[in-house]
Amino acid sequence: MGKPEVLPDPQFQVDRHELVRRLAAVLPATSLLYSTEDTKPYECDGLSAFRKVPLAVVLPENEAQVQAVMRVCHELKVPVVARGAGTGLSGGALPHEQGVTLGLSKMKSILDIDPVARTAKVQPGVRNLAISEATAPHGLYYAPDPSSQIACSIGGNIAENSGGVHCLKYGLTVHNVLKVRFVTIEGEVMELGSEGLDSAGLDLLALVIGSEGLLGVVTEVTVKLLPKPQLARVVLAAFDSLEKAGQAVANIIGAGIIPAGLEMMDKLATQAVEQFVHAGYPLDAEAILLCESDGTPEEVAAEIERMEAVMRASGATQIRLSKDEAERLRFWSGRKAAFPAVGRIMPDYYCMDGTIPKRKLAEVLEGIDRLSKEFGLRCPNVFHAGDGNLHPLIMFDANVPGQSDLAAKFGSRILTLCIEAGGTITGEHGVGVEKINEMCVQFRPDELETFRAVKTAFDAHGLLNPGKAVPTLNRCAEFGMMHVHRGEERFPDLPRF
Amino acid sequence: MGKPEVLPDPQFQVDRHELVRRLAAVLPATSLLYSTEDTKPYECDGLSAFRKVPLAVVLPENEAQVQAVMRVCHELKVPVVARGAGTGLSGGALPHEQGVTLGLSKMKSILDIDPVARTAKVQPGVRNLAISEATAPHGLYYAPDPSSQIACSIGGNIAENSGGVHCLKYGLTVHNVLKVRFVTIEGEVMELGSEGLDSAGLDLLALVIGSEGLLGVVTEVTVKLLPKPQLARVVLAAFDSLEKAGQAVANIIGAGIIPAGLEMMDKLATQAVEQFVHAGYPLDAEAILLCESDGTPEEVAAEIERMEAVMRASGATQIRLSKDEAERLRFWSGRKAAFPAVGRIMPDYYCMDGTIPKRKLAEVLEGIDRLSKEFGLRCPNVFHAGDGNLHPLIMFDANVPGQSDLAAKFGSRILTLCIEAGGTITGEHGVGVEKINEMCVQFRPDELETFRAVKTAFDAHGLLNPGKAVPTLNRCAEFGMMHVHRGEERFPDLPRF
Repeated sequence: MGKPEVLPDPQFQVDRHELVRRLAAVLPATSLLYSTEDTKPYECDGLSAFRKVPLAVVLPENEAQVQAVMRVCHELKVPVVARGAGTGLSGGALPHEQGVTLGLSKMKSILDIDPVARTAKVQPGVRNLAISEATAPHGLYYAPDPSSQIACSIGGNIAENSGGVHCLKYGLTVHNVLKVRFVTIEGEVMELGSEGLDSAGLDLLALVIGSEGLLGVVTEVTVKLLPKPQLARVVLAAFDSLEKAGQAVANIIGAGIIPAGLEMMDKLATQAVEQFVHAGYPLDAEAILLCESDGTPEEVAAEIERMEAVMRASGATQIRLSKDEAERLRFWSGRKAAFPAVGRIMPDYYCMDGTIPKRKLAEVLEGIDRLSKEFGLRCPNVFHAGDGNLHPLIMFDANVPGQSDLAAKFGSRILTLCIEAGGTITGEHGVGVEKINEMCVQFRPDELETFRAVKTAFDAHGLLNPGKAVPTLNRCAEFGMMHVHRGEERFPDLPRF
Repeated sequence: MGKPEVLPDPQFQVDRHELVRRLAAVLPATSLLYSTEDTKPYECDGLSAFRKVPLAVVLPENEAQVQAVMRVCHELKVPVVARGAGTGLSGGALPHEQGVTLGLSKMKSILDIDPVARTAKVQPGVRNLAISEATAPHGLYYAPDPSSQIACSIGGNIAENSGGVHCLKYGLTVHNVLKVRFVTIEGEVMELGSEGLDSAGLDLLALVIGSEGLLGVVTEVTVKLLPKPQLARVVLAAFDSLEKAGQAVANIIGAGIIPAGLEMMDKLATQAVEQFVHAGYPLDAEAILLCESDGTPEEVAAEIERMEAVMRASGATQIRLSKDEAERLRFWSGRKAAFPAVGRIMPDYYCMDGTIPKRKLAEVLEGIDRLSKEFGLRCPNVFHAGDGNLHPLIMFDANVPGQSDLAAKFGSRILTLCIEAGGTITGEHGVGVEKINEMCVQFRPDELETFRAVKTAFDAHGLLNPGKAVPTLNRCAEFGMMHVHRGEERFPDLPRF
């Protein structure tokens, strides 16, 4: 399979001069960039292997300007690619060479905090962490915490349905957003969701969350806030095999415990991290688990006791408990810094994101290990063990001829492995351009057609983020992909794992 | 507004003889009912004010038979109305006079329980409570608990996105279902969702949950199970005014407590209930609150202490704590029996379902009280106070000429009140036929058109549950309805509240 090619799109033939003239009529000068010098910084997001320069970048200051841009693009039939903070890892904000990149970075006000309703109303460009910082004086916080939370925006979180290390207990973005204002490609504003738990009509809010910019642009977000737990502590447990660590995860869940976070790292990952942040991880362990409990001091004490007992019974070779908040943060710092830590010891890495049923953990890890040897590329693993979301980090050097492509092939094989185990090709990073070919493997043609039909209901001309997230059947045929559906069918030419 | 008229549908002209012949060819004889004697028991669901006899009732035994029925109806262009246990309160399963009612009652097997993944895979006809009963030996249960949980089916819960008294802490159906198998009107099977937290592509699972049979028929459901809390206790607090009780709700939430349940009943409701089930409610209180804590004994003890302190500070005139499981169940029995209790003292009642922002509680209750006097109909109130979901019960006697219509008008005015307060016309019962006119009030024409476009993506010929949930613009115009959107616009002829 290899790295998906991003083909030029003959469908769109845009008169750049006319486009800029029309955009200039509806935007302040500081909100419109069109010289290559100005637009080049927007050529990629966190998936830097893909780069394209858009015709123009617009940075609207308010909803009315977003509407105006959408109306211009709709009329001129120009692709629109929305962009939050550009930290996405699947290329969802990769520009379209015949399109406009619509950046939400200027819309970053926190509009309202209601401590009784426990909600905050914010603009899409507000940073994830800024919400928790602003609501901390009320003892509240916003739960989903992707590793990029210092930088990533809530609008981008909605596009990708982001998670984080605490989503096992507190859910993904879709579980923590109550309402959005949303601008359609025609420039109409819709309100989706409500301050209540349910809404009348079809659940378009849930449909929009995770839709990767395919349906419209979110201009205002009402999030659910949670009371900040009085205390949180982390158990760090070491194991002498990945299998035992995997079994410990199953045992924790099986014992009826719902940890606030349950993360696993293998030896390659802990070693990379220790050199970088000195989180205090044992270097001889084949795998470590980080297992957090939060709540009142009584709750935490009782739960930690049960967690430690399960870890011991599962064969942990070492168990440590964070003794204070500083140590708790230090334990997490290693996990949160795993990606840059790997980036530090190898010029390039490719962060994968797949989800598998928890019972298949050992089997899939073994498969990845086999592939690692086959491709001759190291692949440390960090993952949200509690919910089966893997992040293998394929290490390579793009300056060595052929390694980029090898890494992409390796990644594609890992995703196929996830599908065959009954899992899915995305945990929380989205499909974007990165995994668009694997969509052909995971879904049947009629399933892909349903996705496209739903998209068409919002965007009849296919102007919103074309070429991302949902492949055309044409593309699937072109790339020789075929559906491998939960092991029921398989492409005869695909190697068996 | 009054009771929505259900007009005959000239769009469908079905040859009944041909239909029955074709269905008989794909179903066992015991799965096809077509004599009026046999089909009449299916003429209504829990909203018995509306009745229609379908052309045929099919009761498939497996997914292949569901597919076969869908193919026949798709080919002959016959409406299909799916039906679970028939306990729905908004007429979602009201038959179509030119259609087939597809009952899922024979598909009631529990297919798999996985205690480590904490999931159960069941057929759609399985009763809500049966899931918790079957998983109890593993210490697990299925959290959403609508009052009808003894009878209602998981398939129906999905159609309506049902909640229950514990949904404040544990969420609605959409938060507790991981995956479904789903048959389209063309008879194709799709798998939506995954065993992981997120799935690739658009979130069609969330779209299908709460879609009231408009998109397809669910044939298999994988639900999330939760560990059964070791202990649960309920605080019963009495107040001498609705306002104080409402303020106590805000204070509980404001104190950072997330109760397992937080329910409010007014004096009319408690009095009706006490005569019926003797739940032990104080009869002199203007309002009572039921506030549950669950968890380990230590957690519950600590949380109950905080709940009681807030109740006292909020002016509770009496506070009682369930002393054992029997008393806890007795406290809840009154709340869960509120509907039949009211039914016992008045020939008819109309159970409303709307959601409002919690801060508007006192204002909306006052409005309902004023309407109650205006219409001369009593209206006890029970509601999920923690999430702002109201269930006013309009009492009337259908044998008194004009009272049915008066009750429907009263109900419609309550729903408009909810919309004007920034709320929504459904909390957990769905729209069905009951609230289809109010959809015209809550949503703008372009919003309704988006709902219809999404439906059309699944059902191009409009065969699935026609006339329910999403009105045509035609219908809105016919009934003289107009959009009242969160107080921004209003229909000039509507009386002000």
